[in-house]
Amino acid sequence: MSDRIGQTGNQGEKTVRERVEQMQQMTLADFTQELSGNAPVPGGGGTAALCGALAASLSSMVASLTVGKKKYEAVREDMNALIRDAGRLREEFLNLIDEDAEAFKPLAAAYRLPQGTEEEKAARRHVMEQALRHAAESPLRILEKTRETLTLVRTAARKGSVIAVSDAGCSAAILEAAARSAALNVTVNTRLMEDKEAAGCLERRAQEILAECQKESENIYLSVSSFLQQSQ
Amino acid sequence: MSDRIGQTGNQGEKTVRERVEQMQQMTLADFTQELSGNAPVPGGGGTAALCGALAASLSSMVASLTVGKKKYEAVREDMNALIRDAGRLREEFLNLIDEDAEAFKPLAAAYRLPQGTEEEKAARRHVMEQALRHAAESPLRILEKTRETLTLVRTAARKGSVIAVSDAGCSAAILEAAARSAALNVTVNTRLMEDKEAAGCLERRAQEILAECQKESENIYLSVSSFLQQSQ
Repeated sequence: MSDRIGQTGNQGEKTVRERVEQMQQMTLADFTQELSGNAPVPGGGGTAALCGALAASLSSMVASLTVGKKKYEAVREDMNALIRDAGRLREEFLNLIDEDAEAFKPLAAAYRLPQGTEEEKAARRHVMEQALRHAAESPLRILEKTRETLTLVRTAARKGSVIAVSDAGCSAAILEAAARSAALNVTVNTRLMEDKEAAGCLERRAQEILAECQKESENIYLSVSSFLQQSQ
Repeated sequence: MSDRIGQTGNQGEKTVRERVEQMQQMTLADFTQELSGNAPVPGGGGTAALCGALAASLSSMVASLTVGKKKYEAVREDMNALIRDAGRLREEFLNLIDEDAEAFKPLAAAYRLPQGTEEEKAARRHVMEQALRHAAESPLRILEKTRETLTLVRTAARKGSVIAVSDAGCSAAILEAAARSAALNVTVNTRLMEDKEAAGCLERRAQEILAECQKESENIYLSVSSFLQQSQ
């Protein structure tokens, strides 16, 4: 991990990421290019947040293709609520791409602290511990948002127009990937924490949400897939 | 599906998507906003392609954080090859976002064909059949690219630096979501084809690639996850 710190890329010219205020203002081409390189962020955490935004957006698409259709008049209110909630979650997920990158900064700084004397070592350990906890809490927030999004995916798949059912299935598959990616990014930080009780607490919460997201996303994806296969 | 056709959004002012030449030039904020609405594309297919690009980029990130490290000198060539292949696949996936949208156009046009007389009905059925096949082939190409990317994810997870192992795990989880989403978008078209033999052929190919991608992505994700948990 410490090796990863020095590599923040070009020192002179500003990178695309430095030129935009928020990563959500990067183009798909620039974001994926930035992701491909040796900068420590964006990485798996930011990508988890982006996948969360994609999943929320796909569920919103299902609802948008459902409202206003006579056949689906009975679920109009559900669909309008879904579109509203998905819009909020989409924005929150996009903001979390930057929050995740910000949460990495104190950790990068902690790795750079001197460790010559015993006092310095002790001070560094203390700062590092706080930084690791902070870096674990950010993907945990992403996980919490994936759990919120699960409700939307469920509604999209169960009540949305059948013409968009494949998009609901994609939403479920991508939400599962978001949850799994976020969970790995919790663990990669908690595993280095010295306070095993605090680490265990964060980790258990992450695994609990992950299990819920995996189970239900999987069920939704499989039910959409088998519905489409059966009507083959 | 036919209901979905008329809804291409604003007729007057150009949408963000219409202003850019390629969807990869849209910002993350604009792409997810466009995805949320009632336009038929981008949808699950384009999002599958984007997830493929994200997965390839994350594997490239692992390799970028590995090359030049003394400890990993033995795998330098593997990592350089990975970065090169991931760059190509990333571009191909980004282009497939647009290709998937283009492949939808003939289908949208087919749905609009008149079906007053028997001749018109027969002509429409013929055009529709070609359009459905064309629309199924595009997500099948995305699936084929996910299989190519699998090799990269495997190398990143097995030979890449341990400091980036969580990113390799995220790459696997997101690649699986890409494959699953692409497969649903094959089926949603083949299920409507009248030539059941041709449909079955496309479908079997899709399910074969999907099974391979799911199995191996799952193994990689779980091995990364258990490695991180064990060192807790």
